[in-house]
Amino acid sequence: MLPSHTPHTVYLSVQDIIRLVRHKGLPACIAGVAARIERDFLRWNEFDKSARVASHSPHGVIELMPIADAEHFAFKYVNGHPLNTRCGLPTVMAFGVLADVATGAPRLLSELTLTTAIRTAAMSAVAARALARPGSRVMALIGNGAQSEFQALAFRDLVGVRELRLFDTDPAASAKLVANLRGQGLVVHTCRSTAEAVRGADIVTTVTADKRNATILTPDMIEPGMHLNAVGGDCPGKTELHRGVLATAAVFVEFEPQSRIEGEIQQMPADFAVTELWQVLAGHRPGRSGAAQVTVFDSVGFALEDYSALCFMRDAAAELGIGDSIELVPQAADPKDLFGLLGEPRGDGKDGPLAADLRPALMAGENARA
Amino acid sequence: MLPSHTPHTVYLSVQDIIRLVRHKGLPACIAGVAARIERDFLRWNEFDKSARVASHSPHGVIELMPIADAEHFAFKYVNGHPLNTRCGLPTVMAFGVLADVATGAPRLLSELTLTTAIRTAAMSAVAARALARPGSRVMALIGNGAQSEFQALAFRDLVGVRELRLFDTDPAASAKLVANLRGQGLVVHTCRSTAEAVRGADIVTTVTADKRNATILTPDMIEPGMHLNAVGGDCPGKTELHRGVLATAAVFVEFEPQSRIEGEIQQMPADFAVTELWQVLAGHRPGRSGAAQVTVFDSVGFALEDYSALCFMRDAAAELGIGDSIELVPQAADPKDLFGLLGEPRGDGKDGPLAADLRPALMAGENARA
Repeated sequence: MLPSHTPHTVYLSVQDIIRLVRHKGLPACIAGVAARIERDFLRWNEFDKSARVASHSPHGVIELMPIADAEHFAFKYVNGHPLNTRCGLPTVMAFGVLADVATGAPRLLSELTLTTAIRTAAMSAVAARALARPGSRVMALIGNGAQSEFQALAFRDLVGVRELRLFDTDPAASAKLVANLRGQGLVVHTCRSTAEAVRGADIVTTVTADKRNATILTPDMIEPGMHLNAVGGDCPGKTELHRGVLATAAVFVEFEPQSRIEGEIQQMPADFAVTELWQVLAGHRPGRSGAAQVTVFDSVGFALEDYSALCFMRDAAAELGIGDSIELVPQAADPKDLFGLLGEPRGDGKDGPLAADLRPALMAGENARA
Repeated sequence: MLPSHTPHTVYLSVQDIIRLVRHKGLPACIAGVAARIERDFLRWNEFDKSARVASHSPHGVIELMPIADAEHFAFKYVNGHPLNTRCGLPTVMAFGVLADVATGAPRLLSELTLTTAIRTAAMSAVAARALARPGSRVMALIGNGAQSEFQALAFRDLVGVRELRLFDTDPAASAKLVANLRGQGLVVHTCRSTAEAVRGADIVTTVTADKRNATILTPDMIEPGMHLNAVGGDCPGKTELHRGVLATAAVFVEFEPQSRIEGEIQQMPADFAVTELWQVLAGHRPGRSGAAQVTVFDSVGFALEDYSALCFMRDAAAELGIGDSIELVPQAADPKDLFGLLGEPRGDGKDGPLAADLRPALMAGENARA
């Protein structure tokens, strides 16, 4: 191991995380991240929390999500661009960093696109385990895009869901989900509408991508005792539930100041009562009041979940020997002599002034200085 | 070139930036970044600006600095830990990203520790060129740490400074600066106190690291017509100028909402008059009113400067063929099928399920799943 004061950063690429998940198994990764999220949510007051910083543009949003405890600072970069799939790009792409609070040195840089799908599903399942009726077995899954398989497996393993009822405005997305879930021990029906999918479900998960005030779920669809796992509404102007659904339900959120801006509750008055989920997990506040109450987990995705996921991936990668080391910050012999780094090349042959890939430019006389 | 919809990200490591700077020459890099900063400051109203997000801890701060125009989103991660040099780490370490606003795809990940030193010096010189008396030749340089050589060269080339008067509480830092500036065409004196260094100077640059309300410059040291380039005070509780110095000077800032929190002017009432530098560069507001006025550039470092620097490094790296491509976000055949990435390994041999570095873990039976 490197001594702790060297600023080398471990880098986990997309391929590294794919290999890591293949080796541990996706269910084990979801369960492992869920366990870390629960543990970290119980340390809620140890974290320096803030609403994420969002940069909105006509077709999407780019966000930075920082959080820190006394030891680690973490942040995630994540976008949301619903039209991306038209040009072959994921709707959501992400990466993140874990750094040492004591020195500011970045210790881990990791892809977080796959990891976000895992942590979002883990978070949803942790919430449903605390809020849904015991014995919930049937889940409607509205929106069958990139996140849907992860939600399905998380609810299968952590909540006990055995039957899925699918709907998506894109039938190809549902067909893909059906194909991907073959052999996973779930009974899967594809439905012709949201209303059909929702009918009789114990849990309804909405994970749609449109950046608008949608009303995927309307009050007429809601049955007593349902738990609604509202994942897709996570931006100002991007909601999934009719406000009438919220008005009569018990609503639980991650970090209230962020959810007031981004969650389904952006549609409600500022004093609309909500409960932060950590309070339920910690036993400070009740979850559902009874079998007939409708509960809503108004999930937007909070930085603490990414902190938990980054820690899980860091540890799993170390255990499996996955990942490279990159020099994201300099290692100066004298840290007050940054300028000295620009002097004579080091004698290791790695960075000679005429490295092979520069010769063509030099021969062409471009910007070469002796 | 990759088509624009593929999410490959160019990675510029510390060694890449060192090679880039060696090839173009540090003066050319400082001048190039300064030119980009000036051009981007003239587009001030095209940018979505916000004060940076800071996470404070007992020994330092970690900050995220986002900014965007219609085309690019940029952010920098940067820390400030004055005690780091005791354990061989730089006080300031940084890296950053340029992304496409249209899709959210990250296009460039670059070290920004060296680059921050270059852009901070370039910014200081751009401001001094607009604010210092014409013909300024003598600069006091208080704080002779990692940033000081960059400040010296920027003021030599962009402002016309020919003589430096140095002071640092650590004589070794001044000795290092003297050695590094040998042969650079500057007359350099080491002084025994700040007061001695400041006496007779046209420009005073303060670039100290202590995280406290210091009074490096007091009113008795200030002479008519001086330009003060106050670089080191950049955090709540971290200032360099006595408030009496500010009270009688014309004060210029980068982005006022951020400077009110972090700059020297945190010591002043909220209505203390300041001018945003871009207004001077654009000719909307005057700079100094006459030869006797004391001007202060209360610099804290603004995200737009990093945007400019990232663009400069991106273009210079492309021109020189420097940099690697990394897979920070996935390239899925079907972007709605993230789960599909976790299926059978690709046939390129890069990510087989029994890659060599995993065999020991598998043989030891750790977490292996068939």
